Amino acid sequence: MHPAKGEKHWIIPDGYIPPTSAGSLTSHESVCVLNLSSEEALLNLTIFFEDRDPIEDILVVVPPRRTKHIRTSTLSKGGTSIPVGVPYAIEVLSDIPIIVQYSRLDATQAENALMSVVGYPIK
Amino acid sequence: MHPAKGEKHWIIPDGYIPPTSAGSLTSHESVCVLNLSSEEALLNLTIFFEDRDPIEDILVVVPPRRTKHIRTSTLSKGGTSIPVGVPYAIEVLSDIPIIVQYSRLDATQAENALMSVVGYPIK
Amino acid sequence: MHPAKGEKHWIIPDGYIPPTSAGSLTSHESVCVLNLSSEEALLNLTIFFEDRDPIEDILVVVPPRRTKHIRTSTLSKGGTSIPVGVPYAIEVLSDIPIIVQYSRLDATQAENALMSVVGYPIK
Amino acid sequence: MHPAKGEKHWIIPDGYIPPTSAGSLTSHESVCVLNLSSEEALLNLTIFFEDRDPIEDILVVVPPRRTKHIRTSTLSKGGTSIPVGVPYAIEVLSDIPIIVQYSRLDATQAENALMSVVGYPIK
Repeated sequence: MHPAKGEKHWIIPDGYIPPTSAGSLTSHESVCVLNLSSEEALLNLTIFFEDRDPIEDILVVVPPRRTKHIRTSTLSKGGTSIPVGVPYAIEVLSDIPIIVQYSRLDATQAENALMSVVGYPIK
Repeated sequence: MHPAKGEKHWIIPDGYIPPTSAGSLTSHESVCVLNLSSEEALLNLTIFFEDRDPIEDILVVVPPRRTKHIRTSTLSKGGTSIPVGVPYAIEVLSDIPIIVQYSRLDATQAENALMSVVGYPIK
Repeated sequence: MHPAKGEKHWIIPDGYIPPTSAGSLTSHESVCVLNLSSEEALLNLTIFFEDRDPIEDILVVVPPRRTKHIRTSTLSKGGTSIPVGVPYAIEVLSDIPIIVQYSRLDATQAENALMSVVGYPIK
Repeated sequence: MHPAKGEKHWIIPDGYIPPTSAGSLTSHESVCVLNLSSEEALLNLTIFFEDRDPIEDILVVVPPRRTKHIRTSTLSKGGTSIPVGVPYAIEVLSDIPIIVQYSRLDATQAENALMSVVGYPIK
């Protein structure tokens, strides 16, 4: 049995889905999760905005001993997904400890740009 | 009621507003803040330079349960704003715990470049 | 004698070897390790995937008072290496404390893109 | 009087000075330091390599209440500076607590690429 490692609560303040893609790659963001344990991890995501109420209770499962690179454009709740071109922030809660990294590929122009941060763990 | 989470004191040593933009995007930096609490957060920013005294007491409000992606070019105090093309550093103090990330889009050339860090929390 | 510093357990959730290179540079990732001590560090890496079992027990040695920037494309175990174009995650265990950073150069298009994070230390 | 804040010991495992520049910007790296205190900070840098002994005791002063964005290409000891195109790592020791971030601009190709990390603090 492999124990869970990391933290149960992670924050990414700078979320943004670039509205356009010009090159051979598509602009996208990923919330990259590693579940080191032998148990499934159940994630509950909240999306915060500048000028409207959060989208709450987006559920994602990460299988045991697996990583999951979650495209933020695939997240939705009750038919509402994250709008493109709008600043937002991400809160990840998990029932067991995990590790979270966030990366963005911006292909707004012909050549792509990349950024990445490890999420901020709330302890 | 949602409690405040994070830290009250954050540092970003590498600030820099690129002086020019060549592509379809404009060079800019953002200080991205998430306020998880049900209360407003009042931020007090200080801007440090290499060769002159800091600009102090720049005030920013982040509403409850909201994110704010603050363009550094919009910050000013007594008519003084951050000059472009000059290395500087940012200190963020908040009256309640928040989470801070810093991102820069450099569009000096036709294709953009991105970088991002979670701020360093002083505990 | 220089003591070991850092942590023995590091996580990088977002691994990805870009499948193509278009410019004068080759797409690659590096796991950058610093061993501050006067003793050799023995690393044991595990590679996690989204849809298959991990590759375990990849061994790497970092000499005393040296850095090692490990190209992930050079890692293999029993003839199995990390496939390109597939999301994965990296776990680094070391017998003595070290410090780990991860960087990716994406040269999929003519102009390169860079990202980097300090690994997440499990304490 | 402003107290010193941060840590006295910082590590950046992934250092690299790109050997060439093709665009209007020059490839470079910066070690960005913020000294929050009313006292001068005296830094002692060590540069680690993959295949040779470290360069030790490079001294840098950061004035009180100032930031300093140190170009790594300007660092030298006894006439020896950091060679371009070689993987290395950086250790920063300071006599008082400071905060350290590392950023790289790679202008190897016509369009620039950026990466940045907050250094890893040894506590």
